Amino acid sequence: MTVVACLGGGQLGRMLALAGIPLGLQFRFLDPSAEACAGEVGALLVGSFDDEELLDRLADGAAVVTYEFENVSVAAAQRVGAVPGSRALEEGQDRLREKELFKRLGIPTARFGSLEETGLPAIVKSRRLGYDGKGQRVARSAEPLAEDELAEELVSFARELSLIAVRGRDGEVAFYPLAENVHRDGILQVSRAPAAAGADDVAQGYGRRLLEELDYVGVLALELFEVDGELLANEFAPRVHNSGHWTIDGAVTSQFENHLRAILGWPLGSTAVVAPSAMVNLVGSIPAIEQLLALSGAHVHLYGKEPRPGRKVGHVTFVGASEETVAEAVRLATS
Amino acid sequence: MTVVACLGGGQLGRMLALAGIPLGLQFRFLDPSAEACAGEVGALLVGSFDDEELLDRLADGAAVVTYEFENVSVAAAQRVGAVPGSRALEEGQDRLREKELFKRLGIPTARFGSLEETGLPAIVKSRRLGYDGKGQRVARSAEPLAEDELAEELVSFARELSLIAVRGRDGEVAFYPLAENVHRDGILQVSRAPAAAGADDVAQGYGRRLLEELDYVGVLALELFEVDGELLANEFAPRVHNSGHWTIDGAVTSQFENHLRAILGWPLGSTAVVAPSAMVNLVGSIPAIEQLLALSGAHVHLYGKEPRPGRKVGHVTFVGASEETVAEAVRLATS
Repeated sequence: MTVVACLGGGQLGRMLALAGIPLGLQFRFLDPSAEACAGEVGALLVGSFDDEELLDRLADGAAVVTYEFENVSVAAAQRVGAVPGSRALEEGQDRLREKELFKRLGIPTARFGSLEETGLPAIVKSRRLGYDGKGQRVARSAEPLAEDELAEELVSFARELSLIAVRGRDGEVAFYPLAENVHRDGILQVSRAPAAAGADDVAQGYGRRLLEELDYVGVLALELFEVDGELLANEFAPRVHNSGHWTIDGAVTSQFENHLRAILGWPLGSTAVVAPSAMVNLVGSIPAIEQLLALSGAHVHLYGKEPRPGRKVGHVTFVGASEETVAEAVRLATS
Repeated sequence: MTVVACLGGGQLGRMLALAGIPLGLQFRFLDPSAEACAGEVGALLVGSFDDEELLDRLADGAAVVTYEFENVSVAAAQRVGAVPGSRALEEGQDRLREKELFKRLGIPTARFGSLEETGLPAIVKSRRLGYDGKGQRVARSAEPLAEDELAEELVSFARELSLIAVRGRDGEVAFYPLAENVHRDGILQVSRAPAAAGADDVAQGYGRRLLEELDYVGVLALELFEVDGELLANEFAPRVHNSGHWTIDGAVTSQFENHLRAILGWPLGSTAVVAPSAMVNLVGSIPAIEQLLALSGAHVHLYGKEPRPGRKVGHVTFVGASEETVAEAVRLATS
């Protein structure tokens, strides 16, 4: 039996397992929480990512070890020989290095650096450990930045897009069409794919440079701002991504299955779209399931997590559905 | 947390759980084998279906108890209050009662009864506990039938079709389009749906009569022979069915999700087809997964079972794929 081990046991790990069990795989997770929701679909080791004995148990006999969140320590990833490799973590965990990598690869970004370099107003972010808008503030006047802070030009973007890319062990690369993402309170609310009139070729060029530079294996998400018709890279996540959840129902092969295919050295699956899709996040609370299931064509995905404010507890995907249905789902998700 | 309990822990139970976990459900199975493959995706109680203490533990706290094979004893089903109800088991477990039920409902069948009634050659089946062609023989001359045997006219059918039907607790009924099934050595090899020029309206009329007569809740499969353009009912299975596995990838809502929706009293999901689909069973052995995954658009479903001759160990579904791809999958599956 082929065991896939994973640092982190949240919903991304859970959905990896749900994609992998039909491929004959078994899963093992390491998570600090005994309630980690991936524990319902695999073995769960509970403890710190710094616990070397646990890390060794995680990796023991596994065909491959991967991770489901980008803030896992580089040392932990290296100890278990994680795929994607630790290089992607190193580059992505420091926003400054990440932006400098984009720059070096000729991938446009908003201006970044000091407030002098960005101009005002600017968005100030901690260089490390931020996600879902946490650890960010807007600077409207000159002010000192802390050592671990980075300023970014506050661009007025037409929309946010994301590219889900995957690269196999043999260097084969595939892309899903761009998704268009709408956030609410800093948390992804709706992703629609394919994005209307998205510059997929441009985004894919950036994605390919990044994947090849990092000698990356697995799924990677690249977040982009569209500004005056131009794409600016915001950040990348070296993992399956919320803006790619629509692929479970709306693409021939989901991002989760393709991540597994990639890290196991198997052939990548088709990234073709079944029909235009919209994914609505459930954040903070779960509507009555009967109401969700009554929506025409609803694909409901709950994560088995206790609802808490701001916590992603599930999502609903519609494939080829009307905008009215999607709007109704958003209404249910936010009421 | 809502627990669904299931008599039987084979691949049908496993796929029920894989469909239900994203709906926030947890699963509990009872199976005589400690290796039952549904144990990978839910709690597994190991023991006999006649063990009343185990049956009570199975049902304890479960929102609903269902079954995944039709030979579960009526007493066991009644003890746990199974859905679908035990009436469907009673009618289906005895081939004579099953045929008489069809007859009473005006659903045409091949002739059945004694060899005098069927004519020769005829197929002689045990009235109870036969599946996948087991316990059947062909009678070419007059011979005595055992007490528990039933003769059926050996019809020369153009093809075998099956109807997957689902009925909710509120009486709502939905049907998937007819699938066309090809068997090999008495075991389903390929299902294609929608069947070309299938008389769906006629089959659905039969299905509806059966569901309503049995006051049925859940998914039911009706196997039909097409003879001279007419549909003859062969048998029904009061459960999700191999000829409906294509719905996981090829329909908006899978038969597994719809069975769960039905038995939990939730709204039924759309049975619309994504694109014409073909499912190829893996019987007796599993080809190298890289070979299966290299087939364009392959959706691979392995059951986590040890391969043995004649044992169903997985299936592969193709949605909107070419006949050449399907033929290649059949070649891999049978080589």
